[in-house]
Amino acid sequence: MDPALHTYWRSTAAYRVRIALNFKNVDHKLVPISLVKNGGEHRQEQFRDLNPQMRVPFYQEGSFGVGQSMAILEYLEETHPAPPLLPTAPHDRAKARQIAHIISCDIHPLNNMGVLNYLSDTLNISPVERSAWYSHWITEGFAAIETLLRQDRERGNYCVGNAVSFADVCLIPQLFNAHRFEVDVTDFPLIQSVADYCNRLDAFARAHPDHQPDAERR
Amino acid sequence: MDPALHTYWRSTAAYRVRIALNFKNVDHKLVPISLVKNGGEHRQEQFRDLNPQMRVPFYQEGSFGVGQSMAILEYLEETHPAPPLLPTAPHDRAKARQIAHIISCDIHPLNNMGVLNYLSDTLNISPVERSAWYSHWITEGFAAIETLLRQDRERGNYCVGNAVSFADVCLIPQLFNAHRFEVDVTDFPLIQSVADYCNRLDAFARAHPDHQPDAERR
Repeated sequence: MDPALHTYWRSTAAYRVRIALNFKNVDHKLVPISLVKNGGEHRQEQFRDLNPQMRVPFYQEGSFGVGQSMAILEYLEETHPAPPLLPTAPHDRAKARQIAHIISCDIHPLNNMGVLNYLSDTLNISPVERSAWYSHWITEGFAAIETLLRQDRERGNYCVGNAVSFADVCLIPQLFNAHRFEVDVTDFPLIQSVADYCNRLDAFARAHPDHQPDAERR
Repeated sequence: MDPALHTYWRSTAAYRVRIALNFKNVDHKLVPISLVKNGGEHRQEQFRDLNPQMRVPFYQEGSFGVGQSMAILEYLEETHPAPPLLPTAPHDRAKARQIAHIISCDIHPLNNMGVLNYLSDTLNISPVERSAWYSHWITEGFAAIETLLRQDRERGNYCVGNAVSFADVCLIPQLFNAHRFEVDVTDFPLIQSVADYCNRLDAFARAHPDHQPDAERR
């Protein structure tokens, strides 16, 4: 039985794993879990039994299942090492993971749907304050990444050298989200250049939210 | 020259790396960076030149440096594999990283100092709302981890089996922080049991905030 990825078209964490599965040519099926329909299918008993954290992405191979996009990426890298999504040298691997985690730990968690809903519904912040919040964390994180890219003496077309890594796999979905929320990214030309290279690749194109079976017309 | 860890006593992300360095017996020096004194030493030019993200922990070996605690943990695991902080089997490694990332991606980022300051200073939320926010993300994340521990048929003394892993390295600092902010953790007996085992170990004890050179009396 093919592995299954429980996914939601607009989840940028699921988008990361979709890119990795495509890039590594792992045969898999997508199981859409709507975070909005039916009060949120991720909260329903069937999914909660699979993943007590009630979040996508969730990856399954037979009776084994694991959540958390970064844990899934590392698992795929270990079990499907070719083509790699991490460089060979430990220093370069660290650089790739550093950029990936700036996004997965310091940008995305502040801007996912659960947090934005809490800000609006529980803390009653205004739409303007909510946009400013969103923009603040993206801009702060992207500024750090842009500086790291600029300071890299061995810069290539991607975040780390001339090969796709976890860093790019995290960056492209976050940039998609920045565009979706109309965050100004003109100050980040190197990030945009990396994105141009990535988005030409089939693995990234097929993983795009608009190309998912559960995509809704916007 | 020994490696250097730029750290702040109360930073739970730095606490993770301190545990790992102790556990792996890596000779190192600690360079305290105060996040509160002098308007925040992490924002000063000298540190910003090292780490454009202006956050601790930041780890240096000669001219090589890397930020982001999870990237540092993975780097240490690759360059100082013994004693290991990840199990051998890919499924178990994935379980350890899943728990580590529930903390590093879904609990801690919402409750670090920068975010709490933004909530108070920019969004003007009350101390009561701030405590509720803090408690909400810890409780949600710990509930998922407690369930994962309870469902684990091969449960041992630690988060994954009978050996310390990234999961424990992340859990103990987060639990320290939960106590600091007086979050009720009585619903999480398995988490508390893991903590009891970890806190008996010298590597964890020496990494505790109160035992740091920059610790302040409370």
